[in-house]
Amino acid sequence: MNNNTKISNAIIRRLPRYRRYLNILRKRGVKKVSSNELSELIGYTASQIRQDLNTFGGFGQQGYGYSVDHLYKELNKILGLDREYKTVLVGAGNMGSAITKYTYYYKIGFNIVALFDNNPALVGQKVNDVEILPFEDLEDFVRDNGIDIGIITVNQESAQDVADTLIRGGVKGIWNFAPIDLEIPDHIAIENVHLSESLHTLSFLIRSKELEREEENN
Amino acid sequence: MNNNTKISNAIIRRLPRYRRYLNILRKRGVKKVSSNELSELIGYTASQIRQDLNTFGGFGQQGYGYSVDHLYKELNKILGLDREYKTVLVGAGNMGSAITKYTYYYKIGFNIVALFDNNPALVGQKVNDVEILPFEDLEDFVRDNGIDIGIITVNQESAQDVADTLIRGGVKGIWNFAPIDLEIPDHIAIENVHLSESLHTLSFLIRSKELEREEENN
Repeated sequence: MNNNTKISNAIIRRLPRYRRYLNILRKRGVKKVSSNELSELIGYTASQIRQDLNTFGGFGQQGYGYSVDHLYKELNKILGLDREYKTVLVGAGNMGSAITKYTYYYKIGFNIVALFDNNPALVGQKVNDVEILPFEDLEDFVRDNGIDIGIITVNQESAQDVADTLIRGGVKGIWNFAPIDLEIPDHIAIENVHLSESLHTLSFLIRSKELEREEENN
Repeated sequence: MNNNTKISNAIIRRLPRYRRYLNILRKRGVKKVSSNELSELIGYTASQIRQDLNTFGGFGQQGYGYSVDHLYKELNKILGLDREYKTVLVGAGNMGSAITKYTYYYKIGFNIVALFDNNPALVGQKVNDVEILPFEDLEDFVRDNGIDIGIITVNQESAQDVADTLIRGGVKGIWNFAPIDLEIPDHIAIENVHLSESLHTLSFLIRSKELEREEENN
Protein backbone atom coordinates (compact mmCIF):
# COMPACT_ATOMS: atom_id res chain seq x y z
CA MET A 1 0.00 0.00 0.00
CA ASN A 2 1.33 3.45 -0.76
CA ASN A 3 1.02 6.47 1.51
CA ASN A 4 -1.65 8.15 -0.54
CA THR A 5 -4.24 5.61 0.46
CA LYS A 6 -3.91 6.66 4.09
CA ILE A 7 -4.40 10.37 3.41
CA SER A 8 -7.58 11.65 5.00
CA ASN A 9 -10.39 13.07 2.96
CA ALA A 10 -9.99 16.38 4.83
CA ILE A 11 -6.39 16.82 3.64
CA ILE A 12 -7.33 15.88 0.09
CA ARG A 13 -9.90 18.70 0.16
CA ARG A 14 -7.30 21.20 1.39
CA LEU A 15 -4.61 20.40 -1.18
CA PRO A 16 -6.29 22.07 -4.20
CA ARG A 17 -6.80 25.16 -2.05
CA TYR A 18 -3.10 25.32 -1.16
CA ARG A 19 -2.32 25.01 -4.83
CA ARG A 20 -4.73 27.82 -5.74
CA TYR A 21 -3.14 30.25 -3.28
CA LEU A 22 0.40 29.29 -4.29
CA ASN A 23 -0.57 29.99 -7.88
CA ILE A 24 -1.77 33.47 -6.84
CA LEU A 25 1.53 34.13 -5.02
CA ARG A 26 3.51 32.81 -7.99
CA LYS A 27 1.69 35.13 -10.37
CA ARG A 28 2.44 38.04 -8.03
CA GLY A 29 6.14 37.15 -8.28
CA VAL A 30 6.45 36.09 -4.63
CA LYS A 31 9.47 33.78 -4.21
CA LYS A 32 9.09 32.40 -0.69
CA VAL A 33 6.38 32.14 1.89
CA SER A 34 6.25 31.04 5.54
CA SER A 35 3.56 28.84 7.04
CA ASN A 36 2.42 31.91 9.02
CA GLU A 37 2.00 33.94 5.84
CA LEU A 38 0.14 31.04 4.21
CA SER A 39 -2.05 30.85 7.29
CA GLU A 40 -3.08 34.50 7.01
CA LEU A 41 -3.84 34.04 3.34
CA ILE A 42 -5.66 30.71 3.42
CA GLY A 43 -7.23 30.80 6.87
CA TYR A 44 -5.96 27.44 8.19
CA THR A 45 -3.57 27.58 11.17
CA ALA A 46 0.17 27.60 10.45
CA SER A 47 0.59 24.32 12.33
CA GLN A 48 -2.20 22.71 10.28
CA ILE A 49 -0.46 23.82 7.09
CA ARG A 50 2.95 22.50 8.20
CA GLN A 51 1.35 19.21 9.24
CA ASP A 52 -0.53 18.84 5.93
CA LEU A 53 2.56 19.52 3.84
CA ASN A 54 4.69 17.24 6.02
CA THR A 55 2.33 14.41 5.11
CA PHE A 56 3.82 14.55 1.62
CA GLY A 57 7.43 14.87 2.69
CA GLY A 58 7.72 18.46 3.94
CA PHE A 59 8.88 21.06 1.48
CA GLY A 60 9.87 23.83 3.88
CA GLN A 61 13.21 24.80 5.34
CA GLN A 62 13.52 25.93 8.96
CA GLY A 63 13.97 29.71 9.05
CA TYR A 64 13.33 30.10 5.33
CA GLY A 65 9.81 28.86 4.72
CA TYR A 66 8.61 27.42 1.46
CA SER A 67 9.82 28.18 -2.03
CA VAL A 68 6.57 29.22 -3.75
CA ASP A 69 7.53 27.88 -7.15
CA HIS A 70 8.85 24.56 -5.83
CA LEU A 71 5.86 23.95 -3.56
CA TYR A 72 3.45 24.85 -6.36
CA LYS A 73 5.10 22.34 -8.69
CA GLU A 74 5.19 19.64 -6.00
CA LEU A 75 1.49 20.17 -5.29
CA ASN A 76 0.77 19.84 -8.99
CA LYS A 77 2.56 16.50 -8.99
CA ILE A 78 0.78 15.32 -5.84
CA LEU A 79 -2.56 16.35 -7.33
CA GLY A 80 -1.79 14.57 -10.59
CA LEU A 81 -1.89 17.88 -12.47
CA ASP A 82 1.47 17.42 -14.17
CA ARG A 83 -0.27 15.77 -17.11
CA GLU A 84 -3.41 16.08 -19.24
CA TYR A 85 -6.55 14.01 -18.94
CA LYS A 86 -8.64 12.93 -21.90
CA THR A 87 -12.20 13.51 -20.92
CA VAL A 88 -15.70 12.88 -22.25
CA LEU A 89 -18.93 14.38 -20.96
CA VAL A 90 -22.25 12.54 -21.03
CA GLY A 91 -25.44 14.60 -20.97
CA ALA A 92 -25.05 17.57 -23.28
CA GLY A 93 -27.94 19.60 -21.85
CA ASN A 94 -27.66 22.95 -20.06
CA MET A 95 -25.40 21.79 -17.25
CA GLY A 96 -23.28 19.69 -19.60
CA SER A 97 -22.74 22.60 -21.97
CA ALA A 98 -21.91 24.94 -19.09
CA ILE A 99 -19.35 22.48 -17.68
CA THR A 100 -17.82 22.01 -21.14
CA LYS A 101 -17.43 25.76 -21.58
CA TYR A 102 -16.13 26.13 -18.02
CA THR A 103 -13.33 23.59 -18.43
CA TYR A 104 -12.49 25.15 -21.79
CA TYR A 105 -12.44 28.68 -20.38
CA TYR A 106 -10.26 27.80 -17.40
CA LYS A 107 -7.99 25.55 -19.54
CA ILE A 108 -7.38 23.32 -16.57
CA GLY A 109 -5.80 20.30 -18.26
CA PHE A 110 -8.98 18.27 -18.58
CA ASN A 111 -9.60 18.27 -22.30
CA ILE A 112 -13.13 17.31 -23.22
CA VAL A 113 -12.72 15.49 -26.53
CA ALA A 114 -16.33 14.43 -27.08
CA LEU A 115 -19.84 14.93 -25.67
CA PHE A 116 -22.50 12.23 -25.65
CA ASP A 117 -26.26 12.41 -25.50
CA ASN A 118 -29.17 10.11 -26.29
CA ASN A 119 -31.27 12.98 -27.63
CA PRO A 120 -31.15 12.74 -31.47
CA ALA A 121 -31.85 16.48 -31.71
CA LEU A 122 -28.53 17.21 -29.99
CA VAL A 123 -26.37 14.61 -31.75
CA GLY A 124 -24.19 16.23 -34.42
CA GLN A 125 -24.30 19.68 -32.78
CA LYS A 126 -21.18 21.18 -31.26
CA VAL A 127 -20.31 22.89 -27.98
CA ASN A 128 -17.05 24.87 -28.28
CA ASP A 129 -16.08 22.83 -31.36
CA VAL A 130 -16.60 19.56 -29.50
CA GLU A 131 -19.10 17.32 -31.24
CA ILE A 132 -22.06 15.67 -29.56
CA LEU A 133 -22.06 11.92 -30.38
CA PRO A 134 -24.81 9.32 -29.85
CA PHE A 135 -24.81 7.61 -26.47
CA GLU A 136 -24.57 4.12 -28.01
CA ASP A 137 -21.05 4.98 -29.24
CA LEU A 138 -19.81 5.85 -25.74
CA GLU A 139 -18.21 2.57 -24.63
CA ASP A 140 -16.27 2.02 -27.87
CA PHE A 141 -15.19 5.65 -28.00
CA VAL A 142 -13.83 5.54 -24.45
CA ARG A 143 -11.94 2.31 -25.20
CA ASP A 144 -10.59 3.34 -28.62
CA ASN A 145 -9.45 6.78 -27.48
CA GLY A 146 -7.99 5.92 -24.07
CA ILE A 147 -10.33 8.26 -22.24
CA ASP A 148 -9.27 8.91 -18.62
CA ILE A 149 -12.28 10.70 -17.16
CA GLY A 150 -16.03 10.65 -17.72
CA ILE A 151 -18.15 13.61 -16.62
CA ILE A 152 -21.77 12.70 -15.87
CA THR A 153 -24.36 15.45 -16.27
CA VAL A 154 -27.41 13.31 -17.01
CA ASN A 155 -30.41 12.95 -14.70
CA GLN A 156 -30.34 10.68 -11.68
CA GLU A 157 -32.33 7.90 -13.40
CA SER A 158 -29.68 7.42 -16.12
CA ALA A 159 -26.54 8.15 -14.14
CA GLN A 160 -25.71 4.60 -12.97
CA ASP A 161 -26.11 3.21 -16.49
CA VAL A 162 -23.81 5.94 -17.83
CA ALA A 163 -21.25 5.20 -15.12
CA ASP A 164 -21.32 1.46 -15.88
CA THR A 165 -20.78 2.17 -19.58
CA LEU A 166 -17.87 4.54 -18.88
CA ILE A 167 -16.25 1.95 -16.62
CA ARG A 168 -16.67 -0.86 -19.16
CA GLY A 169 -14.94 1.44 -21.65
CA GLY A 170 -12.04 1.87 -19.23
CA VAL A 171 -12.17 5.31 -17.61
CA LYS A 172 -10.05 5.83 -14.48
CA GLY A 173 -12.25 8.44 -12.86
CA ILE A 174 -15.76 9.88 -12.86
CA TRP A 175 -16.85 13.46 -12.11
CA ASN A 176 -20.51 13.04 -11.21
CA PHE A 177 -23.06 15.87 -11.18
CA ALA A 178 -26.14 13.64 -10.93
CA PRO A 179 -27.75 13.80 -7.47
CA ILE A 180 -27.12 10.15 -6.58
CA ASP A 181 -24.29 8.10 -5.10
CA LEU A 182 -23.03 5.85 -7.86
CA GLU A 183 -21.92 2.26 -7.27
CA ILE A 184 -18.34 2.24 -8.45
CA PRO A 185 -15.64 -0.45 -8.18
CA ASP A 186 -12.75 0.31 -5.84
CA HIS A 187 -10.18 0.93 -8.55
CA ILE A 188 -12.19 3.81 -10.09
CA ALA A 189 -11.87 7.34 -8.68
CA ILE A 190 -15.13 9.17 -8.06
CA GLU A 191 -15.77 12.81 -7.21
CA ASN A 192 -19.31 14.11 -6.77
CA VAL A 193 -20.64 17.62 -7.18
CA HIS A 194 -24.01 17.41 -5.44
CA LEU A 195 -25.45 20.85 -6.06
CA SER A 196 -28.70 20.44 -4.16
CA GLU A 197 -26.82 19.23 -1.08
CA SER A 198 -24.59 22.26 -1.37
CA LEU A 199 -27.70 24.48 -1.40
CA HIS A 200 -29.06 22.63 1.63
CA THR A 201 -25.81 23.29 3.47
CA LEU A 202 -26.26 26.98 2.65
CA SER A 203 -29.80 27.03 4.01
CA PHE A 204 -28.60 25.26 7.17
CA LEU A 205 -25.97 27.97 7.66
CA ILE A 206 -28.51 30.75 7.03
CA ARG A 207 -30.86 29.27 9.62
CA SER A 208 -28.01 28.80 12.12
CA LYS A 209 -26.96 32.43 11.80
CA GLU A 210 -30.55 33.59 12.23
CA LEU A 211 -30.88 31.52 15.40
CA GLU A 212 -27.62 33.04 16.69
CA ARG A 213 -28.88 36.57 16.11
CA GLU A 214 -32.22 35.82 17.76
CA GLU A 215 -30.45 34.49 20.85
CA GLU A 216 -28.14 37.49 20.97
CA ASN A 217 -31.15 39.81 20.87
CA ASN A 218 -32.87 38.03 23.77
CA MET B 1 -24.88 30.85 21.61
CA ASN B 2 -27.13 28.18 20.22
CA ASN B 3 -26.13 24.60 19.59
CA ASN B 4 -25.94 24.97 15.86
CA THR B 5 -22.85 27.12 16.05
CA LYS B 6 -20.93 24.26 17.62
CA ILE B 7 -21.83 21.74 14.94
CA SER B 8 -18.80 20.59 13.00
CA ASN B 9 -18.47 21.20 9.33
CA ALA B 10 -18.29 17.43 8.77
CA ILE B 11 -21.76 16.86 10.29
CA ILE B 12 -23.20 19.77 8.31
CA ARG B 13 -21.96 18.05 5.14
CA ARG B 14 -23.59 14.76 6.14
CA LEU B 15 -27.04 16.15 6.99
CA PRO B 16 -28.20 16.84 3.39
CA ARG B 17 -27.14 13.30 2.55
CA TYR B 18 -29.23 11.81 5.35
CA ARG B 19 -32.15 13.87 4.10
CA ARG B 20 -31.67 12.65 0.53
CA TYR B 21 -31.75 8.97 1.55
CA LEU B 22 -34.73 9.47 3.87
CA ASN B 23 -36.55 11.07 0.97
CA ILE B 24 -35.82 7.99 -1.17
CA LEU B 25 -37.15 5.70 1.61
CA ARG B 26 -40.21 7.92 2.08
CA LYS B 27 -41.01 7.76 -1.63
CA ARG B 28 -40.68 3.95 -1.49
CA GLY B 29 -43.29 3.93 1.28
CA VAL B 30 -40.86 2.76 3.99
CA LYS B 31 -42.20 3.71 7.43
CA LYS B 32 -39.30 3.00 9.77
CA VAL B 33 -35.60 2.43 9.49
CA SER B 34 -32.84 1.38 11.89
CA SER B 35 -29.42 2.96 12.11
CA ASN B 36 -28.02 -0.32 10.75
CA GLU B 37 -30.28 -0.14 7.71
CA LEU B 38 -29.36 3.51 7.20
CA SER B 39 -25.71 2.52 7.49
CA GLU B 40 -26.01 -0.03 4.68
CA LEU B 41 -27.78 2.51 2.51
CA ILE B 42 -25.63 5.59 3.15
CA GLY B 43 -22.27 4.01 3.88
CA TYR B 44 -21.52 5.71 7.22
CA THR B 45 -21.30 3.42 10.27
CA ALA B 46 -24.47 2.93 12.35
CA SER B 47 -22.76 4.46 15.37
CA GLN B 48 -21.75 7.52 13.33
CA ILE B 49 -25.35 7.93 12.21
CA ARG B 50 -26.75 7.61 15.76
CA GLN B 51 -24.16 10.08 17.02
CA ASP B 52 -24.90 12.61 14.26
CA LEU B 53 -28.65 12.47 14.83
CA ASN B 54 -28.21 12.65 18.61
CA THR B 55 -26.47 15.99 18.10
CA PHE B 56 -29.86 17.39 17.18
CA GLY B 57 -31.80 15.70 19.93
CA GLY B 58 -32.05 12.07 18.84
CA PHE B 59 -35.10 11.04 16.91
CA GLY B 60 -34.85 7.28 17.30
CA GLN B 61 -36.54 4.90 19.72
CA GLN B 62 -34.66 1.96 21.20
CA GLY B 63 -35.79 -1.24 19.50
CA TYR B 64 -37.88 0.61 16.93
CA GLY B 65 -35.45 2.75 14.98
CA TYR B 66 -36.38 5.98 13.27
CA SER B 67 -39.72 6.96 11.83
CA VAL B 68 -38.77 7.80 8.24
CA ASP B 69 -41.39 10.50 7.81
CA HIS B 70 -40.69 12.15 11.16
CA LEU B 71 -36.92 12.13 10.72
CA TYR B 72 -37.24 13.47 7.18
CA LYS B 73 -39.37 16.38 8.40
CA GLU B 74 -37.05 17.09 11.32
CA LEU B 75 -34.05 17.13 8.98
CA ASN B 76 -35.89 19.57 6.73
CA LYS B 77 -36.40 21.87 9.73
CA ILE B 78 -32.78 21.53 10.84
CA LEU B 79 -31.61 22.28 7.31
CA GLY B 80 -33.88 25.30 7.05
CA LEU B 81 -35.82 23.67 4.22
CA ASP B 82 -39.26 24.19 5.78
CA ARG B 83 -39.56 27.52 3.98
CA GLU B 84 -38.79 29.14 0.62
CA TYR B 85 -35.87 31.38 -0.17
CA LYS B 86 -36.07 34.35 -2.51
CA THR B 87 -32.99 34.17 -4.65
CA VAL B 88 -31.22 36.21 -7.31
CA LEU B 89 -28.42 35.06 -9.57
CA VAL B 90 -25.65 37.35 -10.80
CA GLY B 91 -23.80 36.42 -13.97
CA ALA B 92 -26.29 35.15 -16.55
CA GLY B 93 -23.76 33.42 -18.78
CA ASN B 94 -23.54 29.67 -19.45
CA MET B 95 -23.06 28.57 -15.87
CA GLY B 96 -25.64 31.04 -14.56
CA SER B 97 -28.26 29.84 -17.04
CA ALA B 98 -27.50 26.20 -16.23
CA ILE B 99 -27.83 26.83 -12.48
CA THR B 100 -31.10 28.72 -13.05
CA LYS B 101 -32.54 25.83 -15.02
CA TYR B 102 -31.21 23.32 -12.51
CA THR B 103 -32.90 24.95 -9.50
CA TYR B 104 -36.08 25.30 -11.57
CA TYR B 105 -35.98 21.68 -12.68
CA TYR B 106 -35.40 20.28 -9.21
CA LYS B 107 -37.93 22.72 -7.63
CA ILE B 108 -35.88 22.77 -4.48
CA GLY B 109 -37.42 25.78 -2.69
CA PHE B 110 -34.87 28.31 -3.86
CA ASN B 111 -36.88 30.48 -6.22
CA ILE B 112 -34.73 32.55 -8.51
CA VAL B 113 -36.79 35.72 -9.00
CA ALA B 114 -34.31 37.72 -11.11
CA LEU B 115 -31.01 37.37 -12.93
CA PHE B 116 -28.45 40.17 -13.23
CA ASP B 117 -25.70 40.82 -15.71
CA ASN B 118 -23.59 43.77 -16.81
CA ASN B 119 -23.64 42.66 -20.43
CA PRO B 120 -26.19 44.91 -22.24
CA ALA B 121 -26.72 42.17 -24.84
CA LEU B 122 -28.13 39.87 -22.15
CA VAL B 123 -30.24 42.44 -20.26
CA GLY B 124 -33.93 42.05 -21.10
CA GLN B 125 -33.58 38.42 -22.16
CA LYS B 126 -35.16 35.65 -20.12
CA VAL B 127 -34.03 32.29 -18.75
CA ASN B 128 -37.00 30.08 -17.83
CA ASP B 129 -39.28 33.15 -17.70
CA VAL B 130 -36.91 34.93 -15.31
CA GLU B 131 -35.76 38.28 -16.68
CA ILE B 132 -32.13 39.40 -16.85
CA LEU B 133 -31.80 42.87 -15.26
CA PRO B 134 -28.87 45.31 -15.38
CA PHE B 135 -26.24 44.88 -12.68
CA GLU B 136 -26.64 48.48 -11.45
CA ASP B 137 -30.16 47.65 -10.24
CA LEU B 138 -28.94 44.75 -8.06
CA GLU B 139 -28.57 46.44 -4.65
CA ASP B 140 -31.98 48.18 -4.78
CA PHE B 141 -33.68 45.05 -6.10
CA VAL B 142 -32.29 42.91 -3.29
CA ARG B 143 -33.38 45.48 -0.68
CA ASP B 144 -36.83 46.18 -2.15
CA ASN B 145 -37.71 42.52 -2.65
CA GLY B 146 -36.30 41.04 0.55
CA ILE B 147 -33.97 38.69 -1.28
CA ASP B 148 -32.51 35.98 0.96
CA ILE B 149 -29.81 34.44 -1.22
CA GLY B 150 -27.48 35.65 -3.95
CA ILE B 151 -25.92 33.16 -6.36
CA ILE B 152 -22.63 34.32 -7.86
CA THR B 153 -21.68 32.92 -11.26
CA VAL B 154 -19.48 35.78 -12.50
CA ASN B 155 -15.73 35.51 -13.09
CA GLN B 156 -13.25 35.71 -10.23
CA GLU B 157 -12.32 39.33 -10.92
CA SER B 158 -15.89 40.58 -10.37
CA ALA B 159 -17.01 38.19 -7.65
CA GLN B 160 -16.01 40.22 -4.58
CA ASP B 161 -17.71 43.34 -5.94
CA VAL B 162 -20.89 41.34 -6.60
CA ALA B 163 -20.76 39.86 -3.07
CA ASP B 164 -20.33 43.33 -1.51
CA THR B 165 -23.32 44.62 -3.48
CA LEU B 166 -25.51 41.65 -2.49
CA ILE B 167 -24.56 42.14 1.16
CA ARG B 168 -25.29 45.89 1.09
CA GLY B 169 -28.70 44.97 -0.33
CA GLY B 170 -29.28 42.65 2.61
CA VAL B 171 -28.93 39.01 1.52
CA LYS B 172 -28.50 36.42 4.28
CA GLY B 173 -26.46 33.95 2.28
CA ILE B 174 -24.29 33.58 -0.81
CA TRP B 175 -23.85 30.54 -3.06
CA ASN B 176 -20.54 31.22 -4.77
CA PHE B 177 -19.35 29.52 -7.97
CA ALA B 178 -16.46 31.91 -8.66
CA PRO B 179 -13.07 30.29 -7.98
CA ILE B 180 -12.08 32.62 -5.14
CA ASP B 181 -12.66 32.81 -1.39
CA LEU B 182 -14.86 35.84 -0.81
CA GLU B 183 -14.43 38.16 2.16
CA ILE B 184 -17.76 37.98 3.92
CA PRO B 185 -18.90 39.38 7.28
CA ASP B 186 -19.60 36.83 10.01
CA HIS B 187 -23.37 37.19 9.94
CA ILE B 188 -23.61 36.17 6.26
CA ALA B 189 -23.72 32.48 5.32
CA ILE B 190 -21.43 31.40 2.51
CA GLU B 191 -21.24 28.16 0.56
CA ASN B 192 -18.72 27.69 -2.22
CA VAL B 193 -18.84 25.38 -5.22
CA HIS B 194 -15.25 25.41 -6.39
CA LEU B 195 -15.43 23.28 -9.52
CA SER B 196 -11.76 23.36 -10.45
CA GLU B 197 -10.80 22.24 -6.93
CA SER B 198 -13.28 19.41 -7.25
CA LEU B 199 -11.61 18.34 -10.51
CA HIS B 200 -8.20 18.53 -8.83
CA THR B 201 -9.47 16.25 -6.08
CA LEU B 202 -10.53 13.80 -8.77
CA SER B 203 -7.12 13.86 -10.43
CA PHE B 204 -5.50 13.32 -7.01
CA LEU B 205 -7.69 10.24 -6.50
CA ILE B 206 -6.92 8.91 -10.00
CA ARG B 207 -3.19 9.28 -9.37
CA SER B 208 -3.48 7.63 -5.95
CA LYS B 209 -5.28 4.62 -7.37
CA GLU B 210 -2.70 4.29 -10.14
CA LEU B 211 0.11 4.32 -7.55
CA GLU B 212 -1.76 1.66 -5.55
CA ARG B 213 -2.04 -0.60 -8.59
CA GLU B 214 1.61 -0.12 -9.50
CA GLU B 215 2.67 -1.11 -5.99
CA GLU B 216 0.38 -4.14 -6.02
CA ASN B 217 1.95 -5.27 -9.29
CA ASN B 218 5.49 -5.00 -7.91
